[in-house]
Amino acid sequence: MAAIFLHFNGNSSFLSLSRTHLRRSPLCHKPMKVSMSQNQSYWASVNAEVDDHLARAIPVRPPLSVFEPMHHLVFAAPRTMAPALCIAACELVGGQRQQAVAAASALHLMHAASYTHEHLPLSDRPRPGPTTHHAFDANIELLTGDGIFPFGYELLASLDDPSGNNSERVLRVIIEVTRAMGSQGMVDGQYLQLNCSESDSDGSFHVGSRNRVREKKVGGLYACGAACGAILGGGSEEEIEKLRRYGLYAGITREMLNGVGREENGFLEMVQGFRSLALKELKDFSDGKVNTISTLVDASFCYV
Amino acid sequence: MAAIFLHFNGNSSFLSLSRTHLRRSPLCHKPMKVSMSQNQSYWASVNAEVDDHLARAIPVRPPLSVFEPMHHLVFAAPRTMAPALCIAACELVGGQRQQAVAAASALHLMHAASYTHEHLPLSDRPRPGPTTHHAFDANIELLTGDGIFPFGYELLASLDDPSGNNSERVLRVIIEVTRAMGSQGMVDGQYLQLNCSESDSDGSFHVGSRNRVREKKVGGLYACGAACGAILGGGSEEEIEKLRRYGLYAGITREMLNGVGREENGFLEMVQGFRSLALKELKDFSDGKVNTISTLVDASFCYV
Repeated sequence: MAAIFLHFNGNSSFLSLSRTHLRRSPLCHKPMKVSMSQNQSYWASVNAEVDDHLARAIPVRPPLSVFEPMHHLVFAAPRTMAPALCIAACELVGGQRQQAVAAASALHLMHAASYTHEHLPLSDRPRPGPTTHHAFDANIELLTGDGIFPFGYELLASLDDPSGNNSERVLRVIIEVTRAMGSQGMVDGQYLQLNCSESDSDGSFHVGSRNRVREKKVGGLYACGAACGAILGGGSEEEIEKLRRYGLYAGITREMLNGVGREENGFLEMVQGFRSLALKELKDFSDGKVNTISTLVDASFCYV
Repeated sequence: MAAIFLHFNGNSSFLSLSRTHLRRSPLCHKPMKVSMSQNQSYWASVNAEVDDHLARAIPVRPPLSVFEPMHHLVFAAPRTMAPALCIAACELVGGQRQQAVAAASALHLMHAASYTHEHLPLSDRPRPGPTTHHAFDANIELLTGDGIFPFGYELLASLDDPSGNNSERVLRVIIEVTRAMGSQGMVDGQYLQLNCSESDSDGSFHVGSRNRVREKKVGGLYACGAACGAILGGGSEEEIEKLRRYGLYAGITREMLNGVGREENGFLEMVQGFRSLALKELKDFSDGKVNTISTLVDASFCYV
């Protein structure tokens, strides 16, 4: 049995996902009539907008010792679709794209800083996989990560529009991000992953722990993106929670579709199971945009 | 000439502080009739309240792998008076202590995480002074720091009281903290200090650069504390800026009174100069509490 523990906002729930269940789980959504090229161009335009916002927020400017590594590390970090999902979720619940672009950019900043720290060469850290290329000294990468995090929170706090009376939503989004990135979110996942790579040699790290790493890292990032987009777009509590869960499963599905963990037993069944769980969360959304957002879990989807 | 560059909120100003000026600068405040023991007990009670808040916010609880190092690193970091100054500034402008305790605690968290990262054993980092004791592996200390930062921001964002309608103030305080901690604040100071320790061997690091490190690190932390307290307490823009500057000079004075940099030429004159600049910022405050807040720059003050 593959077990996933879900901890959101400090509450724990336990979701048991048996292989039998996964095999039997039908696709819970209606067949979609979507134009793939239309959807791709939607995601491309959303990603371009985030890139543009980031490039304007972090130009290469003096002092170069600060902004050159910052710019480099932000754009060198692997892209995820979590920022784009933030914007798509905002639009799905009826919000405007501009309400979520800064939060989407902040999410990429958090991911980039976290990725940088995760790959710092520390003496006591085993580094699985190919050695990461380091454009800067470890010390600069550490300090730059420490500078990117607060800049991300500044972008979020600056979202506040005095005329729009949205400061409650902005504060809620800040708390969402702190929890997704903090010691019960991303940091927890990184810690578990290190244990994973240490114990993998003797095969003691089981599938439940691997899924927990997925849930805390990639799943948590996408879940946070989707929830923040829905909050900023004015979604109902039910919509926010559905989109949060969609983000969780979609993030995990996307990572697996990219081949991460393909050596695990029952890998394809797990991918199908997470994909079904993701699509189930969208079934009550009637807006046409739901077709686009659902393409994130398509195997043919060509982004990260 | 000792030159200090002041960069606040992205604006740069240049303050030229000649040694002659420092020698001639009189104490700009009236002689104070204060009871030292009363003042000490004020600061002791404020610090106890911050400690109590932190102990409740970060208890040692499961999972111990997360909360044990977090609790340890938060309480092992050297204490500063910046959190206490945050509360004192809030009370000075007419606010209530409870409005500032969480922000004061968050300030200590930021300082503790930053201190932890600053002392991480990285291969390319020269480490001046006595070797720091590390209770945990470098990897755990890195991840724990990465977990403490977002927890600090969460504490700040949770300050919001829906009935108190203070979310604008809270968002402003978050931006103050991100700037004090980020790549133009604390991180900039840490980077400069590393350059300082590298170039000190050939004597090429001049007093202006040392003062810039002071301004960005200890000065920036105290300035942020004072400004945040004044914002949360409902101070006017003028009061906020005066207290920000008081914090800047008081932080630097305190560090120097503790002997940091005592080998520099003209050290005592510089201490006296910063102290005078600090006290000058308080001269328009009429509240009796100003006597207490001014004791931070007294040589006889017994805290950090």
